[in-house]
Amino acid sequence: MIDLPIRDDLRGLSPYGAPQLDVPVRLNTNENSYPVPDEVVEAIGKALQAELRDLNRYPDRDAIALRGALAEYLGHGLTTAHVWAANGSNEIQQQLLQVFAGPGRTALGFTPAYSMHPLLAVGTGTRWVDGRRDEGFGLAAEHAVAQIREHAPDLVFLCSPNNPTGTALDPAVIAAVLDAAPGMVIVDEAYAEFARPGTPSALEVLPGHPRLVVTRTMSKAFGFAGGRLGYLAAHPAVVDAVQLVRLPYHLSALTQAAARAALSHRAALLSTVEAIKVERDRIVSVLRDRGLTVAESDANFVLFATPDPDQKTAWRALLDRGVLVRDVGLPGWLRVTAGTPDETDAFLNAMKELDR
Amino acid sequence: MIDLPIRDDLRGLSPYGAPQLDVPVRLNTNENSYPVPDEVVEAIGKALQAELRDLNRYPDRDAIALRGALAEYLGHGLTTAHVWAANGSNEIQQQLLQVFAGPGRTALGFTPAYSMHPLLAVGTGTRWVDGRRDEGFGLAAEHAVAQIREHAPDLVFLCSPNNPTGTALDPAVIAAVLDAAPGMVIVDEAYAEFARPGTPSALEVLPGHPRLVVTRTMSKAFGFAGGRLGYLAAHPAVVDAVQLVRLPYHLSALTQAAARAALSHRAALLSTVEAIKVERDRIVSVLRDRGLTVAESDANFVLFATPDPDQKTAWRALLDRGVLVRDVGLPGWLRVTAGTPDETDAFLNAMKELDR
Repeated sequence: MIDLPIRDDLRGLSPYGAPQLDVPVRLNTNENSYPVPDEVVEAIGKALQAELRDLNRYPDRDAIALRGALAEYLGHGLTTAHVWAANGSNEIQQQLLQVFAGPGRTALGFTPAYSMHPLLAVGTGTRWVDGRRDEGFGLAAEHAVAQIREHAPDLVFLCSPNNPTGTALDPAVIAAVLDAAPGMVIVDEAYAEFARPGTPSALEVLPGHPRLVVTRTMSKAFGFAGGRLGYLAAHPAVVDAVQLVRLPYHLSALTQAAARAALSHRAALLSTVEAIKVERDRIVSVLRDRGLTVAESDANFVLFATPDPDQKTAWRALLDRGVLVRDVGLPGWLRVTAGTPDETDAFLNAMKELDR
Repeated sequence: MIDLPIRDDLRGLSPYGAPQLDVPVRLNTNENSYPVPDEVVEAIGKALQAELRDLNRYPDRDAIALRGALAEYLGHGLTTAHVWAANGSNEIQQQLLQVFAGPGRTALGFTPAYSMHPLLAVGTGTRWVDGRRDEGFGLAAEHAVAQIREHAPDLVFLCSPNNPTGTALDPAVIAAVLDAAPGMVIVDEAYAEFARPGTPSALEVLPGHPRLVVTRTMSKAFGFAGGRLGYLAAHPAVVDAVQLVRLPYHLSALTQAAARAALSHRAALLSTVEAIKVERDRIVSVLRDRGLTVAESDANFVLFATPDPDQKTAWRALLDRGVLVRDVGLPGWLRVTAGTPDETDAFLNAMKELDR
């Protein structure tokens, strides 16, 4: 047995990650179930081919063209200077913690939320405060503000739509948190494109809030999880600050080229979003019709109360029927990704057998 | 003027990175000057194409196939379990600092060495001790051991061949450091493939040294800087420990596929190494013949004393002649990458004009 001098605060932790099991219906990591369309495969392939001969050279360290394309996609008057990109939004959030939190500083999130946030805090030496959501997973502005006043965190994570619950935050909550927070406020909008009509993005309140950062990803709506591209939008001073900790040449020439090609063909890629929302809404209504408690969802997944109060039993029973969903560690709840109509059928049929 | 709550220890720092200037002869970042050969372009293109349809899925989080290919390349009886890969060796070294150093712990390197080491320490909240090399940039075992005894660092960086000086470490120094160091010892072998005959790799002493980590990159000898692939070899317990801080799915499906294809065609890619070593040796001998002081080089670059004691003047004069070299901040010294014969000619001719 080898005893390595691992940090004490890491001892006993487990690496983050859902089981990568080979199962017919994989609805556990909120991937977009639709493969990349042929026309986009062709475009990305062509863009990559153009990079290959010069792979001996370092990539554009500042990823200028890609950031411009992301800014154009986001709209809201954003420019290259407002946007920064990295290998997934995890790397973006790690960079933000390195600059604005870290040793001697505190980050607060409202649990349950994206479970990487506390792990990123530990990995950057940031003290983590496990803030609490309300009963039923909501978050009232006064409850959020009271917790921020109590802990005065250097960095607050909000998650809208929230993962694993699926529900978007009321803009009034974001406004109240921006008002109360003494430091930076990160709104993780990984699932923004799936929000129900009328749900505003925190991008709308970026002007006038230089301590607000909105993080996004191409993994979900764009169906680009394998390409690893996360990004942020914020005041240009935030982008400048992140340069102090970003690893030089962190984004490969291949990543930059593939993501740019995907953005150029976003109409084709994002065309799956409406179909996925239909399945999401179907899962919510069918499960409710069957008498289960289900959280409101603005994302490509649904959090539902299992018939058996031990969600582990339900998770295993679904897996036995070829359907892999996510046990997020909430007693009595499971999370299922909304994918294709066939996947929804398979999931709902498996659930029916559980009810019996 | 926006005043963001950036960490105090980051204020006033500048982001790492050489100027990315558009100059005819770029010899400033130790890139491999040879473009990817046609046969390898074709192979990488094919490998990438096979990934594109399924980019909606997350990549293999553990990069098993790639790690196996890297282990096979390294030899020395290493297996998948001994190897870990990331987006450049910077990310590898950042992960090692996160696990084995970080807040309340100390890392020591022997300056001048790779200038990212102290920046990675700052970015991970690690206290950095600027150890010193001997006069003439060597490092005697007793001098290294004395500094380790004085500071008892949790993590020691060695760099062999050293950057920016170019010289490989005597294996006796590595052995002495392993013996004296109370924590982890990282040997950064980014330039190992360029070492002069008879220079052993620290890979040879991995058996029996579970606290030794050897880091490598595909950026230099493989000419794969744009693909961003760094890796480490160590006891499998080190690889397990790094899992606690690695970002999930940090390596894209494209990076994994491209790097595997490059490794499959390594004979073609590594065929440039001997040609580059010839140029490296030519730069050393011509500059010495002209009376300049030049460090011994086991890398694809050469550190030389400038005729003008202010290296900034020499740097500018070379740039004016279309040759971009690196000012690494050592008064009276500059670093030049060894590239193609034409690039060597351009550099040596420009240097001749400086002499006058």
